[in-house]
Amino acid sequence: MGLAFSCVLLGCASAVWAANDALPSWTAGPAKQAIVKFVGEVTHKGSPRYVAPAERIAVFDNDGTLWSEQPLYFQFIFLLDQVKAAAPQHPEWKDNPAFKALQSGDHALIAQHQKELLQLMAVANSGMTVAEYDKTIRDWIATARHPKFKKPYTELVFKPQLELLAYLRANGFKTYIVSGGTIEFMRPWAEKVYGIPPEQVVGSSQLIKFELRDGKPTLVRDAKIDFVDDGPGKPVGIYRNIGRWPLIAFGNSDGDLQMLQTVAARPGGGLALIVHHDDAEREFAYDRQSSIGKLDKALDQAQSDGWTVVSMKRDWKRIYP
Amino acid sequence: MGLAFSCVLLGCASAVWAANDALPSWTAGPAKQAIVKFVGEVTHKGSPRYVAPAERIAVFDNDGTLWSEQPLYFQFIFLLDQVKAAAPQHPEWKDNPAFKALQSGDHALIAQHQKELLQLMAVANSGMTVAEYDKTIRDWIATARHPKFKKPYTELVFKPQLELLAYLRANGFKTYIVSGGTIEFMRPWAEKVYGIPPEQVVGSSQLIKFELRDGKPTLVRDAKIDFVDDGPGKPVGIYRNIGRWPLIAFGNSDGDLQMLQTVAARPGGGLALIVHHDDAEREFAYDRQSSIGKLDKALDQAQSDGWTVVSMKRDWKRIYP
Repeated sequence: MGLAFSCVLLGCASAVWAANDALPSWTAGPAKQAIVKFVGEVTHKGSPRYVAPAERIAVFDNDGTLWSEQPLYFQFIFLLDQVKAAAPQHPEWKDNPAFKALQSGDHALIAQHQKELLQLMAVANSGMTVAEYDKTIRDWIATARHPKFKKPYTELVFKPQLELLAYLRANGFKTYIVSGGTIEFMRPWAEKVYGIPPEQVVGSSQLIKFELRDGKPTLVRDAKIDFVDDGPGKPVGIYRNIGRWPLIAFGNSDGDLQMLQTVAARPGGGLALIVHHDDAEREFAYDRQSSIGKLDKALDQAQSDGWTVVSMKRDWKRIYP
Repeated sequence: MGLAFSCVLLGCASAVWAANDALPSWTAGPAKQAIVKFVGEVTHKGSPRYVAPAERIAVFDNDGTLWSEQPLYFQFIFLLDQVKAAAPQHPEWKDNPAFKALQSGDHALIAQHQKELLQLMAVANSGMTVAEYDKTIRDWIATARHPKFKKPYTELVFKPQLELLAYLRANGFKTYIVSGGTIEFMRPWAEKVYGIPPEQVVGSSQLIKFELRDGKPTLVRDAKIDFVDDGPGKPVGIYRNIGRWPLIAFGNSDGDLQMLQTVAARPGGGLALIVHHDDAEREFAYDRQSSIGKLDKALDQAQSDGWTVVSMKRDWKRIYP
């Protein structure tokens, strides 16, 4: 309260006012208020919580935080197509439990085999150059449609989050994706859709090798997962790729728990935010029991530690652009 | 010639003029000219080689390119101190050839055991939190002095390169370090000394693990090298951390060969630059036979492919600030 008061005295009111215009898809309420208050405090020079622009880092999970993730992580739908296409070259997959799960179409079963499926995908696209692989992703993203909404996946991004990303950047923040998905899957469209450039996309990655092909420097994919940027991997990904302690983290599931814990523990205070998917009508409703995007431990800690839980139903006037 | 001509017609002359002021420690000559011409062409909107600001990436090796690296990579001098300090806890090192090489003080022998020594260092600082390790580096950098010049290592950075970094940034480039050294060793001072923020430092890295210590999120160093950002690793590091094809690469040794090849092969053309240490009087003179910073294959390819070789003696009026 002392901070809020000094902030008003020192002129944060103008930042608050500007934010009201910058976040039109956010309902006036505690979530929006928490964001605007925090941004006002860290950006106002006279504030005791002031942070220099170079240090203003905000990290966002992607699946379920910036775009939808049901009925199955969109990268898994791509993976499904990729693995199926490669299956004729891999008769050894026939008895592989992960491959069987994929073929069953059972989302809970697929989610259980998440790690093994990423391995199959790594095998499926190994030997491709990074340029060839990039093309398969661009082609898929351009043509694939969501099973429920019948729209391109890149249109199933959350309008309030696009506004928040732009609002943070306007306040001097560098915005990053920190996702369990792979860097290759997000980079081709993240800049256009989110305004987040390739160098600010942190994600899982496959082993890549340099070779000269006909004298031409070439990067080739190896059949091995190199880094899993999920759960406890997220703070590690942040450390490796950013090397600064983010001020703001936004997630939606237990895969974001350690990232949220890390940001909440920032000296001087960090803002931990969670999207709660509670809107079955406009999007999907799921949390503690979901096989995709399970929000359980992180929800408990949000409640005990006072993290900001954003209800899609209550806090977002619109979902999609 | 056609490009240079249209560039002059379209107004690159003013960029050239500005650069003459921005690079006062560079002798007027072919190296400076190549840089200024290239930057003029890629930044001038009417030029056929124009590149949008978001795509302007320049990558710099660190050891021998931005600061000195003789008589031994500075990180190795730090490593030597670290491993020696940890030796009493590691009686098993007694018969280790890398440890023996380190104790001998023989630089050629130390260079031969580069990889094994990095492993020893990883063991020496394993179990430390990243914050503890960061402190050991800051303390060392603040107090250590170069054996020949008796100055802090951070004063042995190259003045012409500081000017070039600033000149590139003024022309909309994002400047990155891409070094065989570790990210932890460079990040604590790279922003202050080079103007390169932590998130733009790409380097080798050790395995890091997340854990809760007394409920506090903590990153702890594991005794394993995770990624070697040297030689063929450099284009991989660029791919993983930047995800864009750099326009300019600056190196000084065969450890930069693949990075230089990659940038030179950029569609539309890239600028590959090499520092040639040929100034025994003001710095050091070494190339094809050196155990540290060996410049041999990269020098051959520079000569055959027309890369720009920067002679310290001829092209730099001053070496240090």
